Amino acid sequence: MKIDKSKKILIVGLGLLGGSYAKSLTKQGYYVTAITLEQASVDYAVEHNIITKGSAFVDEALIAEADIIVFALYPHVFVEWIKENGHLITPKTVITDVTGVKECIVYEIQSLLPDGVEFISAHPMAGRETSGVENADDGMFKNANYIVVPTEKNSLDTIELCGDLGETLGFREISVLSPEKHDQMIAFLSQLTHCIAVSLMCACDAPDLERYTGDSFRDLTRIANINDEMWSELFLSNKQTLLQEMDKYRNAFDKLYDSINNGNREELRRMMQLSTARRKKFNKKKS
Amino acid sequence: MKIDKSKKILIVGLGLLGGSYAKSLTKQGYYVTAITLEQASVDYAVEHNIITKGSAFVDEALIAEADIIVFALYPHVFVEWIKENGHLITPKTVITDVTGVKECIVYEIQSLLPDGVEFISAHPMAGRETSGVENADDGMFKNANYIVVPTEKNSLDTIELCGDLGETLGFREISVLSPEKHDQMIAFLSQLTHCIAVSLMCACDAPDLERYTGDSFRDLTRIANINDEMWSELFLSNKQTLLQEMDKYRNAFDKLYDSINNGNREELRRMMQLSTARRKKFNKKKS
Repeated sequence: MKIDKSKKILIVGLGLLGGSYAKSLTKQGYYVTAITLEQASVDYAVEHNIITKGSAFVDEALIAEADIIVFALYPHVFVEWIKENGHLITPKTVITDVTGVKECIVYEIQSLLPDGVEFISAHPMAGRETSGVENADDGMFKNANYIVVPTEKNSLDTIELCGDLGETLGFREISVLSPEKHDQMIAFLSQLTHCIAVSLMCACDAPDLERYTGDSFRDLTRIANINDEMWSELFLSNKQTLLQEMDKYRNAFDKLYDSINNGNREELRRMMQLSTARRKKFNKKKS
Repeated sequence: MKIDKSKKILIVGLGLLGGSYAKSLTKQGYYVTAITLEQASVDYAVEHNIITKGSAFVDEALIAEADIIVFALYPHVFVEWIKENGHLITPKTVITDVTGVKECIVYEIQSLLPDGVEFISAHPMAGRETSGVENADDGMFKNANYIVVPTEKNSLDTIELCGDLGETLGFREISVLSPEKHDQMIAFLSQLTHCIAVSLMCACDAPDLERYTGDSFRDLTRIANINDEMWSELFLSNKQTLLQEMDKYRNAFDKLYDSINNGNREELRRMMQLSTARRKKFNKKKS
């Protein structure tokens, strides 16, 4: 169910994701405001009808009037922001986020908030290799997955509201996972894939490779164009879980390596058949 | 320069690639015929104006009238075909191919051919996760790379003709590499990427992963849907070179692993910055 049109939504952090949330919601007629670091981002977003108004300061009036606040900040910046400004959030406000790691922030944020303010965490599985509100694109949510990440402290109503926000934004599949399950899933599906792409680009310094490449290399390394500040923080915030997933992957890679080295065609083909069968489930459904 | 419209072109092996060559050339007004295993493929291709005529037998008349023969077969099938039927090819015919490995076939094929028949090898860097002439799609060549792979035995005229065929098919960038250089390049750019995608899909059997995934995992594993018969042959035909490239990649992956394990944020960021800088060169140029 889409969220009630009367809800006032404040976005904190008007980057690519925060900007895309704002753009989608404003387009649909919601009242959307923003607090972000740069006045230029506020100006751009107001000029382009992405938000109704915004501030480059922590504007108490914008916080007070908001029914839902979406935090789209780096993990440690999110925690710092709540430590400094959490007391300004008024009771009955629901806060949510887009943070890529959960266990290391969700419990802490929930413990820092004033009574009556509920934090329900979420992870929109969408992104682009660009940044900034200038690249905001609400089309990125179409057919994408959205994960609601509640703890014992969350009420059923708020879990539902958070799913409704995902639905309003246009996500196709809304799932619910605990912070621990989320972090394991994301270590495999997202962080490990970025590790692989970065390693592959770092592995070879031959010149002119781009003249000979096909689409497989291009697709596989699309995400090797990476925001090093954000992703090093995400990797290190989920270190033990990520290392476990990297181990599992390396075992499979080593097995394939040994099959090639031993000329074991049957084992090679068996792995390829398993891979093909599993991959079929991942094709994006057409809407 | 596009090849002369009077040239008669025979495709041997009317699968996805052979069919796409035929479709593109017929559309442009060339006289295109085919020899392939299945009568159903011939029938489909004639009905859909992909070829003028074809045969499910080794039709000597089709071979005799051809000016250019394109072999689109598995490596060992290509070699067997030439051993059995190479004597039927008439002098002044130029033969070329689309085979994904070169060193293990090019010299042998050249030594098997009758006098006056020249084999100039080529590798179109295009493909799809489908097969068969029913999926033929000449759009796959647009903006793609095409590698001409000559040896000392090739004449300049034939090397040029082979590049002209690539240009006629619509490839954007035509390069020339020796068989050895080609195989090294392809081990890194194509075979290693397929090894990575297969290993990743084999590494985790958690259910419902597709409900939580984002585009990075989808893009990285697109090629995990793989023809196990063809790719196991390609891997094993290029074994030593592929193992070397797998070693290089594994070293980079291990370095990233150690950086995470040691909490070495600076090294992590350095690798990500290198990866980002290198990846920028691979963006497909818009035509």
